[in-house]
Amino acid sequence: MSYIASPAPSLTLTALPSIPHVRPGDDVAALLLDALGRAGLALRDGDVVAVAQKIVSKAEGRQVRLADVTPTARAEELAAQVGKDARLIELILRESTEVSRLRPGVIIVRHRLGFTSANAGIDRSNVQLAGGEEEAVLLLPRDPDASAAALRDALLAATGAAVGVVITDSHGRPFRLGTVGVAIGVAGIPALWDRRGEADLYGYRLQHTDVGLADEIAAAAGLLMGQAAEGLPAVLIRGLRLPPAEGRATDLVRPPELDLYR
Amino acid sequence: MSYIASPAPSLTLTALPSIPHVRPGDDVAALLLDALGRAGLALRDGDVVAVAQKIVSKAEGRQVRLADVTPTARAEELAAQVGKDARLIELILRESTEVSRLRPGVIIVRHRLGFTSANAGIDRSNVQLAGGEEEAVLLLPRDPDASAAALRDALLAATGAAVGVVITDSHGRPFRLGTVGVAIGVAGIPALWDRRGEADLYGYRLQHTDVGLADEIAAAAGLLMGQAAEGLPAVLIRGLRLPPAEGRATDLVRPPELDLYR
Repeated sequence: MSYIASPAPSLTLTALPSIPHVRPGDDVAALLLDALGRAGLALRDGDVVAVAQKIVSKAEGRQVRLADVTPTARAEELAAQVGKDARLIELILRESTEVSRLRPGVIIVRHRLGFTSANAGIDRSNVQLAGGEEEAVLLLPRDPDASAAALRDALLAATGAAVGVVITDSHGRPFRLGTVGVAIGVAGIPALWDRRGEADLYGYRLQHTDVGLADEIAAAAGLLMGQAAEGLPAVLIRGLRLPPAEGRATDLVRPPELDLYR
Repeated sequence: MSYIASPAPSLTLTALPSIPHVRPGDDVAALLLDALGRAGLALRDGDVVAVAQKIVSKAEGRQVRLADVTPTARAEELAAQVGKDARLIELILRESTEVSRLRPGVIIVRHRLGFTSANAGIDRSNVQLAGGEEEAVLLLPRDPDASAAALRDALLAATGAAVGVVITDSHGRPFRLGTVGVAIGVAGIPALWDRRGEADLYGYRLQHTDVGLADEIAAAAGLLMGQAAEGLPAVLIRGLRLPPAEGRATDLVRPPELDLYR
């Protein structure tokens, strides 16, 4: 048997402890740095910080009181079809470019950010407004790639460390059951890693070319974040050895005309 | 600001070093234990071992010499449509229950194991037969859930440690670009983690219920395995705190009649 000489690369994922409930206007970079400090961790070049979209969205003030929403006639009509609150449907429509599927209790749309998701990623859970009694929902960040870049810049300015940032969400998907973490915002790393032209062990050209790197990072972080009741919205990933790149989550959106998998 | 008291859970992923080129009949459990030993690692209860399907398939003798394959008329016809070797198309058809899409260079099928994939997961790379000169391809394991269970049993018998096993492959997917690691065989852990009924931070019932846990594990392992030229087909994942369960990768296959995402 021939052995391949190789080191034993390893990755460490650490869920940052004690991230507080985030409020509109909060400084997410400061919250992360504070949590890192309390965990005795300092950022290093090459680290990647995965952040759940919820805390970014909350800090950006993306909560909406349903009482403030006036549904259009189309929203009322769809709401009747699926049996959901017309005000929620109205927000879903505003966040979408296309309605893909309707079933009782379910509305699948193409989000304005390009991906396909249930309810346009709008979440009713974990939102608390002043007073706490009103029904509110949380929209995704307006431009998660820009949010990721701003966070990366703030972390660099504060620590001198060039880190990657991935803003994650949990999505259902076609063909497979179960939600998985996906990247909706990326900065400082490749989102899609082009391995075209690299040779495999026997010198063949690799057939599978692009790796959905930022989605693999989001899924890995999801293993720790997945425990909603435990409030773990940020994960530090150390040990990735990535080529320098300025990826964006929008790189991961498959153009419909190239989508043979559907 | 209210802080949530919580520990800082962490995960460690270690790519096992120096896995040799695997040959038909090789004992994968023995290869893994040997690599673990050389890395100074001993399995513990609750560890999960992610293994790339390639080494399982090779050990199970799933290489096929194209010279040994006689294509049917239907395979010849499809081969002409997509511009691929008719013998390869013949194998793809034998491994599939349905052809979903055809385009020059691409054939997307529903694999007999239930998932949708390009080329039925058949891979031309990294296969070497005795002599080394013949064109060969590698099929997926015949029953990857059974392969995972056998591996789990062998590791338990050898070490006394109750570990989970995930057999992984890289799949393209609808809507999103880039391949990601997915679970095609599972033993000893839940594949789909039912979080229904659990309350979130504010006491709401979680809206997203089932987590595609084994797929998140496969994607995380993919971050280390993804480097084909480096020969890293096995990853030890330590630190997951999973409920006991006997999941199977087939749990992750979404029944077409419930698939609103397509």
